[in-house]
Amino acid sequence: MTDAVAPGGTVGILGGGQLGRMLAIAAAQLGLKAHVYAPEADPPAADVARCTRGAWDDAGALRAFAGAVDVVTYEFENVPAAVVDALEPLVPVRPGRKALAVAQDRVTEKRFLNRIGVATAPFAPVDDAESLAAALERVGTPAILKTRRFGYDGKGQARIAGDGDAPGALAAMGGAPAVLEGLIRFSREISVIAARGADGAVACFDPGENVHEDGILRSTTVPAGCDAATAAAAKEIAARILAALDYVGVIGVEFFETDSRALLVNEIAPRVHNTGHWTIEATANDQFRQHVKAVCLWPLGDPARHADAVMENLIGDEALDWARLSAAPGTALHLYGKAEMRPGRKMGHTTRLRAIAAPSSSL
Amino acid sequence: MTDAVAPGGTVGILGGGQLGRMLAIAAAQLGLKAHVYAPEADPPAADVARCTRGAWDDAGALRAFAGAVDVVTYEFENVPAAVVDALEPLVPVRPGRKALAVAQDRVTEKRFLNRIGVATAPFAPVDDAESLAAALERVGTPAILKTRRFGYDGKGQARIAGDGDAPGALAAMGGAPAVLEGLIRFSREISVIAARGADGAVACFDPGENVHEDGILRSTTVPAGCDAATAAAAKEIAARILAALDYVGVIGVEFFETDSRALLVNEIAPRVHNTGHWTIEATANDQFRQHVKAVCLWPLGDPARHADAVMENLIGDEALDWARLSAAPGTALHLYGKAEMRPGRKMGHTTRLRAIAAPSSSL
Repeated sequence: MTDAVAPGGTVGILGGGQLGRMLAIAAAQLGLKAHVYAPEADPPAADVARCTRGAWDDAGALRAFAGAVDVVTYEFENVPAAVVDALEPLVPVRPGRKALAVAQDRVTEKRFLNRIGVATAPFAPVDDAESLAAALERVGTPAILKTRRFGYDGKGQARIAGDGDAPGALAAMGGAPAVLEGLIRFSREISVIAARGADGAVACFDPGENVHEDGILRSTTVPAGCDAATAAAAKEIAARILAALDYVGVIGVEFFETDSRALLVNEIAPRVHNTGHWTIEATANDQFRQHVKAVCLWPLGDPARHADAVMENLIGDEALDWARLSAAPGTALHLYGKAEMRPGRKMGHTTRLRAIAAPSSSL
Repeated sequence: MTDAVAPGGTVGILGGGQLGRMLAIAAAQLGLKAHVYAPEADPPAADVARCTRGAWDDAGALRAFAGAVDVVTYEFENVPAAVVDALEPLVPVRPGRKALAVAQDRVTEKRFLNRIGVATAPFAPVDDAESLAAALERVGTPAILKTRRFGYDGKGQARIAGDGDAPGALAAMGGAPAVLEGLIRFSREISVIAARGADGAVACFDPGENVHEDGILRSTTVPAGCDAATAAAAKEIAARILAALDYVGVIGVEFFETDSRALLVNEIAPRVHNTGHWTIEATANDQFRQHVKAVCLWPLGDPARHADAVMENLIGDEALDWARLSAAPGTALHLYGKAEMRPGRKMGHTTRLRAIAAPSSSL
C-alpha cells in the first residue's frame, strides 16, 4: 500500500464528459479529490471537480495538471500518445500506455486478442480499393468497414451488403486507415466490466446483456440471458485480457454470443463503460469506485450484485422526460449536466432496480 | 412543475459538511449544479460544489449566494433565523422556517408533537434549580437534562440517576435553557426517513433500526426488527409530522419502541439524516436525491428498497482502516474528505449490502 493514493489525495482525470463526472463523484465518495483536464469550456465533470482547461497539446497546462494530482487516469481511449508522453515522467498514468495503444487501433486490438487466444469476428486491414477487394474476398459479406481509429457510437462505420457497396463505404472512410469486419450472426450481445489491481487481483461484475440501436447503446440488462457457463467464460476472457495488458483499472469488454454459444470479442474499452452504469445502484462498489480504487492502488472492492437491473440511456431529447422519470417506480434517474441537447447525444440514463431473483454465488 | 428547478439549475446548500457533500453529489447525479455556503475554510462539500465562504451574519455574502442559486436548502437544523430572514425574500428556502423553528428547540418540538397526537417521553422545561426540582418531580428519574437548543451527537446532555445528580447536571448546561426528559425503557430505536413534496405527496423509506453509543449513531440496520404494524405506524407518524409542518424535503424521525410496542418520537431532524445513509446503495432514490427532488419541486422518487443493508459509522480513527474496508465483502465505503481526524468525529461510513430476504411490498 506504500504507493497508494490515500484519502485526501487527488485523482487526475483526462476528459470531462459524463464518465469523468461519474469518476469524480466516485472519488469524492472515497474521500479523494478529483481534478479534471479537458479542452472544452464547461465540461460536465467540472461541476464536481477542480478543472484545468487546456488543449491536448498544451505542454505547460499538462505539466501544471501533473503537479496538482497524485495519479492520472482517463475517461476515453483516444488520449493522444503525446499526452501520456508529457505526463508519465511526472505522475503515474493508469491504465497505462499499452492498453491505450491496443485499444486505439481496431486492427492492433484484434491481433492482440487473437494472439492471446481470444476469438474475434474475421477481419482484414483496408487502406485502399485494392486491399478492400482482398479483404472482401477473405471476410465475405455482409461486412462492416470501420476506421481503425477514433470511432465511437457508430461513427466512422459503413455497412457492405454486397460488393456494390464497396466504393461508397471506402469513400465514407475519407482516406483514413480502415478495417473490414465480418458481420456476425449473434443471439445476444453481452459485456463484462472487469477490474484489475496492481497486485494482479481481478474482480469481474456480472455480465450485462446489451441492445444497440444505430450503433448507440440503448440498454443493458443484468442478469444477462446467457447461461452460467457462458457468463463464467466471458469473465475468464476479460481476466485474460487484463493480465495480458498488465492492466490497472476498469475495462469494458463487449462480446457477441453466436447461435452456437461461441463468444467473440467485439471490442474492448480501457475505461469505465456505458454498459456498467447499472453497477452504481446494484453493487456496493460500482465501476467508478472500482476504477478509482484500482488506479489509486487500493484493494479492489467486491463486485457482487445485490439487485437485478435494467439500464437505459437517455439519448437526445429523451432527457426532456425527466419529471416523469423522477417518479418512475424503482428507477434511478441520472442526468449528465450537458448544456446542449443534440440528437444522438447521451444526456443521461435510468436504472430500474428489482430485488434479486436468483442471488449470485458471492452474496 | 412551473416553478421547478429544472436540470441545469443550481441548488444552494447552507453548510458544507458530509451531508452537504452528499447532497451536492445527489444534485450532480440529477443534472443540477450545487453551490455551498459555509463559514469554514475548506469544507468537505466544496470538493464537489461551488462554494461561497461566508459567516452566518455576512449579509453581503448571503445576498450574493442567493443571487447565484435557484433554491436554498440546508444540511443542519441550527441555521440561524436571521439567515432565513436574509435569504427568503430573494430565493425560496426549503424546508422552511416552520420546520426550523420547531426543530431548533426541544421543548417547542415536543409540544408540537404532542399537539398533533404524537407521543414523546415525559418532559419539562428547566431554567434553574427551582424548575429542575419541579421537573424531576413530574418526570421522575432516571432522566436526562439537555440544552433546549444546539445539541448534537450527545453534546449538551447530562444524565440524572437520582436527585443528587441534579446540581451537577444543571451546571453542565452552563446557564442555557434546558429540558428534562424521562429516560424511556425501550426495546429498540428505529427511525423513518421520509420526504414530502410541495404537492403534499409523501414517500417514506423503510424504518431502520439504530444503535447509539455515547450519544453517537453507531449503526443502522434495514429491515428493522420491529413487526410490520409498528413499521407502518412509524411511517404514518412521519407523514403526520410532515403534513403538520407543511414540509417540503426529507426529514428524519427517531423513535423509541417501548417494551409494550408503543412508539415515542425521540427527535426530528429537518434534513437528510445519518440513519438514512443506507439508502444510497439500497434504493433507487436515496435520501439525498429525494431531498434534492423535493426542494426543486420535482416529483418524489420511489422509496422502495431493493436490498437489505447495515450502515456503520466510521468515527475518529476508525477511518484509518480504509484499505481493509475497501475490499470488505458486499461493502460500500464512504469517506467524507475531512482533513482533520478527531475522536468522536464522523469521518465516513460503510454500508454492507445483502440481496433482499423478503421483498418489500412495493417491489
